[in-house]
Amino acid sequence: MTQDLEAILTAADAAARSFADTEPHARAKALVAVADALEANADELVGIAMDETGLGEPRLRGELTRTAVQLRLFADTVVAGAYLDVRIDAADPGFVLGVRPDVRRYLVPLGPVVNFAASNFPFAFSVAGGDTASALAAGCPVILKGHSGHPELSRRTAEVVADALAGAGMPAGTFQLVTGQEAGVAVLKDARVKAGSFTGSIPAGRMLADIAAARPAPIPFFGELGSVNPVFATQAAIDERGAVIAAGYVTSVSGSAGQLCTKPGFLFLPYGHGLDEAIASAAAEVAPHRMLNPRIAAGYRQRREVILGTQGVRVIHAGDIEIHGDGQGSATPTIVAVSLETLLDERDTLLEEAFGPLSILVEHGADAALAELVPQLFEGNLTATVHAGGDEAGGALEALVRVLTEHAGRVLFDGWPTGVAVTPAMQHGGPWPATTNDSSTSVGTAAITRFLRPVAYQGAPEALLPAPLKTANPWGVPQSFSPAGESVHWGSKA
Amino acid sequence: MTQDLEAILTAADAAARSFADTEPHARAKALVAVADALEANADELVGIAMDETGLGEPRLRGELTRTAVQLRLFADTVVAGAYLDVRIDAADPGFVLGVRPDVRRYLVPLGPVVNFAASNFPFAFSVAGGDTASALAAGCPVILKGHSGHPELSRRTAEVVADALAGAGMPAGTFQLVTGQEAGVAVLKDARVKAGSFTGSIPAGRMLADIAAARPAPIPFFGELGSVNPVFATQAAIDERGAVIAAGYVTSVSGSAGQLCTKPGFLFLPYGHGLDEAIASAAAEVAPHRMLNPRIAAGYRQRREVILGTQGVRVIHAGDIEIHGDGQGSATPTIVAVSLETLLDERDTLLEEAFGPLSILVEHGADAALAELVPQLFEGNLTATVHAGGDEAGGALEALVRVLTEHAGRVLFDGWPTGVAVTPAMQHGGPWPATTNDSSTSVGTAAITRFLRPVAYQGAPEALLPAPLKTANPWGVPQSFSPAGESVHWGSKA
Repeated sequence: MTQDLEAILTAADAAARSFADTEPHARAKALVAVADALEANADELVGIAMDETGLGEPRLRGELTRTAVQLRLFADTVVAGAYLDVRIDAADPGFVLGVRPDVRRYLVPLGPVVNFAASNFPFAFSVAGGDTASALAAGCPVILKGHSGHPELSRRTAEVVADALAGAGMPAGTFQLVTGQEAGVAVLKDARVKAGSFTGSIPAGRMLADIAAARPAPIPFFGELGSVNPVFATQAAIDERGAVIAAGYVTSVSGSAGQLCTKPGFLFLPYGHGLDEAIASAAAEVAPHRMLNPRIAAGYRQRREVILGTQGVRVIHAGDIEIHGDGQGSATPTIVAVSLETLLDERDTLLEEAFGPLSILVEHGADAALAELVPQLFEGNLTATVHAGGDEAGGALEALVRVLTEHAGRVLFDGWPTGVAVTPAMQHGGPWPATTNDSSTSVGTAAITRFLRPVAYQGAPEALLPAPLKTANPWGVPQSFSPAGESVHWGSKA
Repeated sequence: MTQDLEAILTAADAAARSFADTEPHARAKALVAVADALEANADELVGIAMDETGLGEPRLRGELTRTAVQLRLFADTVVAGAYLDVRIDAADPGFVLGVRPDVRRYLVPLGPVVNFAASNFPFAFSVAGGDTASALAAGCPVILKGHSGHPELSRRTAEVVADALAGAGMPAGTFQLVTGQEAGVAVLKDARVKAGSFTGSIPAGRMLADIAAARPAPIPFFGELGSVNPVFATQAAIDERGAVIAAGYVTSVSGSAGQLCTKPGFLFLPYGHGLDEAIASAAAEVAPHRMLNPRIAAGYRQRREVILGTQGVRVIHAGDIEIHGDGQGSATPTIVAVSLETLLDERDTLLEEAFGPLSILVEHGADAALAELVPQLFEGNLTATVHAGGDEAGGALEALVRVLTEHAGRVLFDGWPTGVAVTPAMQHGGPWPATTNDSSTSVGTAAITRFLRPVAYQGAPEALLPAPLKTANPWGVPQSFSPAGESVHWGSKA
């Protein structure tokens, strides 16, 4: 495929201002038009996706729905306008720090964004996924670097998106597709591009983050990389609902053949948990699932062999990964167990993420100082999960939750980290290497903030203010107002 | 001076959790205690600052007051709690994307922060300045790399700050001083440090930003680097109040010997503006002002000579920079004029920031396409300013304002960019190289957000939730609540 990168970059740059200036209802309608178009083409798109990724039809139809609803949620976000974070300070000649001018601040779009699509969510983290939806909602043109794992789906989805945006009156260049790593890197380096986002592996994410940081004018780069998502179940939880935990664990590990960034890689259990059989029998019932592509299948087979060959590893359910003549692989879940001591001894081998349906039980003594061990074992994670008894409390549990908060972006209780809800409060991000930038999220409406920067207007006449900052507030956005005559309240009373 | 960096880093790391866990009133009282202590020691501190920086007593007393008030503003911010951005999604089995769990999200402190102090604001951007105040308010221990330009003031201020924090019951290690570039770099590289901030030159800021980005675990780095702050005055503005503009310009250029990051480096005027004499006579009345230190004085003298020696430069007021035997320099303002054509021809020479009391008038034809020229002339700036006539409007003015918004973090009208107000809506930051990270501000209460990251709790029992996320809301913070039963409103009506 030939692609004219210069033309693509010129078009994105040319679209930036007029797209930024679209009124909220126009931009929201464009997002809804994309959602409608995806759903109207669902049969075709899901068919291509099944063929290219090996993921199942129910999962892919659900993912397409999520992708469309996500676009509608962002349409709501754009119309509501709270994301603009409008702040207005009234002029105040008597302000405690001297004359305070009229200052009005809001968030404006950064400009063209390059999004690097993921392999494992061909809709929700790909061409029309969360990064695209949030960047478009913010008012930024998107250059989408398609993932090589689903090229035809990327091409068709990009057509659907671009056509819908054009039909909704958005400027040409608002959404464009590029393919190939080399093209993606060239776009990321171009001065006209103002931010990047990525979902993928640690090495690729690190390479791109370094490129973004080393530009003559560095830009923000939001990479979601690797995560092993540890889960901790207490004896009280097992006593109450051990079978439910075993079944939920296997479902979470094996869904989509374990090819999810939130798959629980480790389940910590006290010795004598008695869940071996329940876990093994649940795992035995999971049908073989095709892996996303030959590269991932080969990588998973290798990683699985290394883990199975590590001293001290006990097999709960061996499972399998079969590589076919065309290089595609089919896997069933592999569950192994190690002692906490083995995990510590073999940390360099065992702690690395296994991208596929493999997970490790970690068995420990009842008095293991788990809260103290977490910082020794884990870098940053997207999630960490605790299963405790219904009325369980106390210092050890609180200490564990506290330390998990420091190591993850989302801490779950009595649930499973896969299946991330798309909501206002969702956080999908965490300390390095879960993400390159843990002050942001790639899932949920807060993701829009990644593609905005603040601008303040000081002493501006009403006529020259942008709509959200006008006193007349024609868009009806929330405005946080600091009136004149306010002092420093709390400090002066202290 | 010997300093035990390992002990300092260990202490900051050890303080991080207990300082993060301080309740709002305790942390706010600690900030107020620092403010009180600075004011109680004002005579001594201002005396040292006058000696070490050459800045005048009224300016320094005002700056110390600003620094103290800033701490009190952040105390208010901490108690008000809106900065925590608490979002609560109620569990919703009927949510449009399937079962939605109870998810609660807020912002938590990043951990120890290293702040690199500036030379030109020995209080407000130094030891106890805005970066320190906002990091402490966020709940992050601070390691402060003192500026070599005011070593004794740094040492004494650090004592005052650390003593006040200890007296308010904050953990040891909450605030510590290090000195020397090598020590600052070592701290920035240390894994226990989670963010950095800086105010200074482009080369130093770039070097530090690159170090932060290249760490094994990269961290956010907030550098405020260089800015030339262009100002544009229309003929209508000059007709209305030319003398006021001339006087305001000279005051803004010459205050603190022009050693301000918001000093207007360029004033664009239409040919025939007739302000030469008003500007020259205002500049002639400015008394010599000592430059901050010998290095800055020598750099300014060299830069001034280069500009005066550039072909096409017309002197409005020559001013002077005299270097004394001890290396300290005294300067009076230098104002020159060039044609727009000369500025374009000599851009490599003229566009670089001159850190000192020098500014350039840029004279242009009435029909100059200023909006189109801005992107050719200027990289990112902290500020850009427009002086227009009282009832002036129209496309050219609107186009200019629009492009200035794209190139600066703050756009001013009929004012001067020096003297930044510390308010909720203030934005002090802008596209590279004004800052390394234009999605944040270093002045105003929004600066606290730099040192926070989001964490979500999913399905957590009330007892295990942190105080701001509890339904009982013991701290009384604002909670943004998404109730069950909500749908995607706007999109479904479209």
